[in-house]
Amino acid sequence: MKNIRGFASDNNAGVHKSIMQAMKDVNVGHTIAYGNDIYTQAALEKMKKIFGEETDIYFVFIGTAANVLGLDAITQSYHSIICAETSHIHEDECGAPEKFTGCKLLAVSTKDGKLTPTAIKKYLYGFDFEHHSQPHVISITQASEMGTVYTVDEIKAIAELAHENNMLLHMDGARIANAAARLGLGFKEFTGDAGVDVLSFGGTKNGMMYGEAVVFFNKELSKNFKYVRKQGMQLASKMRYISAQFMSYLSNDLWLKNALHANSMASLLASELKDVAAVKITQKVEANGVFAILPKEAVPELQKEFFFYVWNEETSEVRWMTSYDTKAKDVRKFVRLIKEKLS
Amino acid sequence: MKNIRGFASDNNAGVHKSIMQAMKDVNVGHTIAYGNDIYTQAALEKMKKIFGEETDIYFVFIGTAANVLGLDAITQSYHSIICAETSHIHEDECGAPEKFTGCKLLAVSTKDGKLTPTAIKKYLYGFDFEHHSQPHVISITQASEMGTVYTVDEIKAIAELAHENNMLLHMDGARIANAAARLGLGFKEFTGDAGVDVLSFGGTKNGMMYGEAVVFFNKELSKNFKYVRKQGMQLASKMRYISAQFMSYLSNDLWLKNALHANSMASLLASELKDVAAVKITQKVEANGVFAILPKEAVPELQKEFFFYVWNEETSEVRWMTSYDTKAKDVRKFVRLIKEKLS
Amino acid sequence: MKNIRGFASDNNAGVHKSIMQAMKDVNVGHTIAYGNDIYTQAALEKMKKIFGEETDIYFVFIGTAANVLGLDAITQSYHSIICAETSHIHEDECGAPEKFTGCKLLAVSTKDGKLTPTAIKKYLYGFDFEHHSQPHVISITQASEMGTVYTVDEIKAIAELAHENNMLLHMDGARIANAAARLGLGFKEFTGDAGVDVLSFGGTKNGMMYGEAVVFFNKELSKNFKYVRKQGMQLASKMRYISAQFMSYLSNDLWLKNALHANSMASLLASELKDVAAVKITQKVEANGVFAILPKEAVPELQKEFFFYVWNEETSEVRWMTSYDTKAKDVRKFVRLIKEKLS
Amino acid sequence: MKNIRGFASDNNAGVHKSIMQAMKDVNVGHTIAYGNDIYTQAALEKMKKIFGEETDIYFVFIGTAANVLGLDAITQSYHSIICAETSHIHEDECGAPEKFTGCKLLAVSTKDGKLTPTAIKKYLYGFDFEHHSQPHVISITQASEMGTVYTVDEIKAIAELAHENNMLLHMDGARIANAAARLGLGFKEFTGDAGVDVLSFGGTKNGMMYGEAVVFFNKELSKNFKYVRKQGMQLASKMRYISAQFMSYLSNDLWLKNALHANSMASLLASELKDVAAVKITQKVEANGVFAILPKEAVPELQKEFFFYVWNEETSEVRWMTSYDTKAKDVRKFVRLIKEKLS
Repeated sequence: MKNIRGFASDNNAGVHKSIMQAMKDVNVGHTIAYGNDIYTQAALEKMKKIFGEETDIYFVFIGTAANVLGLDAITQSYHSIICAETSHIHEDECGAPEKFTGCKLLAVSTKDGKLTPTAIKKYLYGFDFEHHSQPHVISITQASEMGTVYTVDEIKAIAELAHENNMLLHMDGARIANAAARLGLGFKEFTGDAGVDVLSFGGTKNGMMYGEAVVFFNKELSKNFKYVRKQGMQLASKMRYISAQFMSYLSNDLWLKNALHANSMASLLASELKDVAAVKITQKVEANGVFAILPKEAVPELQKEFFFYVWNEETSEVRWMTSYDTKAKDVRKFVRLIKEKLS
Repeated sequence: MKNIRGFASDNNAGVHKSIMQAMKDVNVGHTIAYGNDIYTQAALEKMKKIFGEETDIYFVFIGTAANVLGLDAITQSYHSIICAETSHIHEDECGAPEKFTGCKLLAVSTKDGKLTPTAIKKYLYGFDFEHHSQPHVISITQASEMGTVYTVDEIKAIAELAHENNMLLHMDGARIANAAARLGLGFKEFTGDAGVDVLSFGGTKNGMMYGEAVVFFNKELSKNFKYVRKQGMQLASKMRYISAQFMSYLSNDLWLKNALHANSMASLLASELKDVAAVKITQKVEANGVFAILPKEAVPELQKEFFFYVWNEETSEVRWMTSYDTKAKDVRKFVRLIKEKLS
Repeated sequence: MKNIRGFASDNNAGVHKSIMQAMKDVNVGHTIAYGNDIYTQAALEKMKKIFGEETDIYFVFIGTAANVLGLDAITQSYHSIICAETSHIHEDECGAPEKFTGCKLLAVSTKDGKLTPTAIKKYLYGFDFEHHSQPHVISITQASEMGTVYTVDEIKAIAELAHENNMLLHMDGARIANAAARLGLGFKEFTGDAGVDVLSFGGTKNGMMYGEAVVFFNKELSKNFKYVRKQGMQLASKMRYISAQFMSYLSNDLWLKNALHANSMASLLASELKDVAAVKITQKVEANGVFAILPKEAVPELQKEFFFYVWNEETSEVRWMTSYDTKAKDVRKFVRLIKEKLS
Repeated sequence: MKNIRGFASDNNAGVHKSIMQAMKDVNVGHTIAYGNDIYTQAALEKMKKIFGEETDIYFVFIGTAANVLGLDAITQSYHSIICAETSHIHEDECGAPEKFTGCKLLAVSTKDGKLTPTAIKKYLYGFDFEHHSQPHVISITQASEMGTVYTVDEIKAIAELAHENNMLLHMDGARIANAAARLGLGFKEFTGDAGVDVLSFGGTKNGMMYGEAVVFFNKELSKNFKYVRKQGMQLASKMRYISAQFMSYLSNDLWLKNALHANSMASLLASELKDVAAVKITQKVEANGVFAILPKEAVPELQKEFFFYVWNEETSEVRWMTSYDTKAKDVRKFVRLIKEKLS
């Protein structure tokens, strides 16, 4: 199965050729290390054009670190962080948030990976009571781990709830491009403008090699972040190669083209399977993921040709991810295989 | 001064063109993420050929993380770690070791950046006494932060001292290639064979873009390291691009050619300055760094044309680093400038 | 309301006079500090008589510390700890377990404060998968925070589930005496003999002043605990005064008499309220706590004379705790007041 | 040697009888737990009379915790804490400060246990440089671990240095009473008035059973301390028994009488040994400790009758501590023994 484009993870795709070229282009002579170089300054300026001059932005290596360090910057260890039970910070980071921040994570059960004010409110008590971890951050994922997307109004409602309670809103934007593509909006409109305080801005799942940004919409929150990043083992020495990626990714709408394509491939997959009775799509397909329940015995058969992950062993729910380089013919081939195996 | 090759840091150099090509070569289709890919398996096998089949090896993003996570794997928080006062883990990682491991660092004063059994022994007391952080690890840097290199016998003597006291020996090998080039030895002969238990194996300062390896010479020490790496925010999703770098770096003696060249450029610089009375070389030049005391007023003048760092403000000691891409003509130009400014 | 015996908390009661006397009795001359004294040796021997010679036992200051340090001794930071949503370690320790151990707590919803194998199993997945905090400890509270008591069989079933999965069973025994009194068993029969690996053994809520014990039923688990306790800021200098308390508490069945009495007072309170239509007892009364739903408007009226805590604002559920010094006349007076206010 | 008054540690002494009586006196009925009781309010008010109305004061169990939590309140993990190599926080707390705060401790070599501005200045660099742990706190011990006492002017000079650099001054006052007795001053004059920002106020080494206070001279620093204390496992449930001790300790000059006596016993010991040629007193005797170098072979002989600790095995330096209950006859007996063994 070497190098076959499959549906296991958008992390399995390679690097977009424009981004690879951009990395090569900055590979000239010496530049000062640790981010004080012209490439990094340019990339940060480009991002400030997008997110606003009042933002403060830092590059790190990966999404887990963007989440953990962004959260660390806005918490003390006696705080709690409210998140969905399916969120990456709760489910897929091996306890990195607890280890680094010392905070308690409160995992909220959801139907579709999205928090709601009603669900959050259940956890908003014990303020000022020293025996209780103080609720301080709400963390949402956009697009969510279940392939769904928050609307601007939904984000604003959560932000209001947070701020009314002197809490902050964090967004894990590992797949933020897919959400923006879906919403038809610029990044700022559903992040800073909607009340998000700190954002993990990801690109690795959409054509980059490595590198993620932590975006603070209030500089007061980030005033000591350079120390947090260094102590958090996330200050790249040869920073120019991260910066070059972001510069390319954010130029010529590359991020948008990639995301629109990945989303459309997920839509195609879902729509082609609509009439297959044995496949039950379980979540709205709003970004680049398709969740479906299949007959259990069919799973290993399908995985032989296109590897993918089982999301829930018990219910035989699987996750299929599309990516910027998924081809329509890959989808059709996969659909044919599914129909064949399930009939 | 854009992209001028200077003497500030080996981190300022770019990526060797063979390594850049190797990264491009693996940029084909999908591969499984997080290190279960064929490129990573191949790179790890190549490293095991070098370090021994009984080793256990993990890739991380940077040197600070290689040090911190390698130390974390072999300590409990009530342990202490003995290191040189000038060591990177004590001086240049913003407290990352303390934050992540909870351990106490005991910083030993040295003349040349190298620990000795005599200097270490002063800290070997309080064993079994619960009020005292238990000495558990000795950490040495090869080549040292002062541009000096431990001989095999020096390493063996420290390893013996460690093991006699049920302690472990950690080596920060951020510049291990420069040390190997100097010693004329393979990596294994002065690491695992000399008694090193855990090694941070670096390449970024010698032509790579990012990526460092933690090498365990005893699998018992690393049996849970995959969790430490993940929780430590150092598990790369698109691992193949780190692996490709290591594969190229370790092929065709690229690492050695680069290191030999960098070392020779430092030697050249030192030797050309031997007769300049106003420049006092303060450390043996055994790797790719030259430390020298200059008249204080000359420093800013020189920095205007070739940026470099002052190591010690008080004594006006400066550090000049050469790298794999330093040219002899760069050295000669710099020497001419020094002579001109100091005469 | 100065010093009136109320129903707010068993922590509000004073110190039993025999225990106070015992503290005075050891106040003679000098003894070696930090637990190497004859009083501490005697108290530990007494405890080993109860729990078995193969146990290893350490005194700490408070219950939160007994829980946190006991858990720390048996976990690495990449582990998760499964507990009831109402457990003290999740709800009432301000995140101390996360801060000190770095572990993730998985909070399980329960009806009566008691975990069951079925409820736990939902969380037993992701073993060996490095992205997932590794489930490693199940923590139960005996008697539970809801005033209920696990039977020996219930504990054994959970212990088996834990051990089958290479996990460990922790018991928070802040009110272990009340549970033992209820079960009519010695401490060992429903702890070590039932499969508990580590126990927080409390006495402060049953007549002691301060001091709690961490009991390890397997010395392999505690071999470095003396360092954990010291680094955890829980090694008392004048240890003899903790030891004297335990010696007195465990002599002449003082612990049992106190617990039986407290339990009987809770039973009396519950039974006297059985016929009060406006009061709905919500949990089985198996130890020294009574949970009840009252008309919301009555609560402040009652609190004016006997302070107690509202457990759940929304449902107007309150918690009444009895203690070793509660008098039957206190209960009757309180019941009369309730009847008066609610009629 | 049961209960013989020796010279090993002031922690080996018992509890002063007035303090024991005070604990008994508050053992009446129920009081609200966790510090909201009348006894605690009264004790805090008494302390505010001493330290000033603008202070904020919290009780904890022990000195290690007072130090660690006080430091935690005023640091972030990327800070460093400058202290003497002999300080309790560096040498005798098993790494508790590093584990809990994540900070780096910088241990300064001293002759007499006391820091000086000159010695500190060596560590004041790297401000604003993210690779370097940011120097943020200077911690001094009064009386020092070597039995010496800072003058008011010495403290002011260090405080000025700290504040000029936007740093804070912490004082470990485990033996603050002995220092006050020596200086002939009230507590405030050489703490808050001299520029100390946070103080660990101890009493256990001077007649109390347990309990220490953290005194903040600026409420901004302590605004979240109640959470730090709770998460730090130092919030006592039955707080009244700590408060009663402090109330008694601070009444009728009990603290002063005890400290004056202990100091005078150390003076007596030192003066009686002045003429013994084989005993070399190594530190000024300004509080209740005497440091001396003895012939190595004499040490075990002496320890058989009066246990004490060897401070430095190599030089055969020993430490003798006196306490509030040391009798002049104890000193004379010990001196006779020394003379006998050394002649």
